[in-house]
Amino acid sequence: MSLLHPSNKEEFEKYILDVENFPKENVVFKDISPLLANKFTEVVTAFSQAPIDWSGVEHIIGIESRGFILGSALAIHLNKGFIPIRKKGKLPPPVYSQSYQLEYGEDILEMKEISSPSSVVLVDDVLATGGTIQAAAKLCERNNFSIKAKLFLINLTFLNQLKESNPLIHSLIEY
Amino acid sequence: MSLLHPSNKEEFEKYILDVENFPKENVVFKDISPLLANKFTEVVTAFSQAPIDWSGVEHIIGIESRGFILGSALAIHLNKGFIPIRKKGKLPPPVYSQSYQLEYGEDILEMKEISSPSSVVLVDDVLATGGTIQAAAKLCERNNFSIKAKLFLINLTFLNQLKESNPLIHSLIEY
Repeated sequence: MSLLHPSNKEEFEKYILDVENFPKENVVFKDISPLLANKFTEVVTAFSQAPIDWSGVEHIIGIESRGFILGSALAIHLNKGFIPIRKKGKLPPPVYSQSYQLEYGEDILEMKEISSPSSVVLVDDVLATGGTIQAAAKLCERNNFSIKAKLFLINLTFLNQLKESNPLIHSLIEY
Repeated sequence: MSLLHPSNKEEFEKYILDVENFPKENVVFKDISPLLANKFTEVVTAFSQAPIDWSGVEHIIGIESRGFILGSALAIHLNKGFIPIRKKGKLPPPVYSQSYQLEYGEDILEMKEISSPSSVVLVDDVLATGGTIQAAAKLCERNNFSIKAKLFLINLTFLNQLKESNPLIHSLIEY
């Protein structure tokens, strides 16, 4: 579901710029820089209004790199701990590794092995085909984390039908 | 200066792990993951106690990637906007670019060209030789930003003498 009232959605969309042919030909990049610079508190407050029992959530997990910006901000807003999921080779051992498919080739995400279970919320900027969030969820399972929600600033619903089948997925804006 | 009372410093240090030979031979990596997972609110609160006139600060600037975690959290804690400084090629144009020296070779940081001036605070996780923060400061100058402070979780003072000559530099922990 979308967490925003239509009028807030319109307000937020004014601060998201379409940049054509970035980072490569025939791709339209959603530049959220103006939103972060001008409406950051409003964005994080909207995340915190997701229909979750926040009292049971211990950690917010952000996915490198823009998921760090949104996830750590949400953690502080709600007084939770923060756990990063990073690209391969950035976190010191011991880590869990999980590969996932890209358009061409594959990439690897890693999370520290953590000995105690936790209830967590995953945060990233954009839900596109879903490969990243599925790899992140697998890393959480290997740590025996219970995932309470998967939050995104933007859901590109023309690239996935995940929200229909996955009640944990929430986003602020859908395209 | 260090922003922490000695007893808090000891408390924080318990959650920073030394990892030997990471990311390469003969390097001791400071792993701040346990600190972020367990004492995140305390860390960000300590940052907010830097002796700055925060009312005049408009944006917090975080440097990719761990500076994103700390900087965006501080921005939300203080109700400020957030601006990222990223590695080359990650931000869509128009951007300012600034190269800086690494131990071997060089790297490039980028920040969006922003048309309006701002008063800002720069945040990163570790101050080592100072190359990254100097490049970040140059990017701020090119945007006509006024830098009110440069905040670090850790200052490796055996690698730099910057705090003696630069009153804008504050850190939570010194080694």
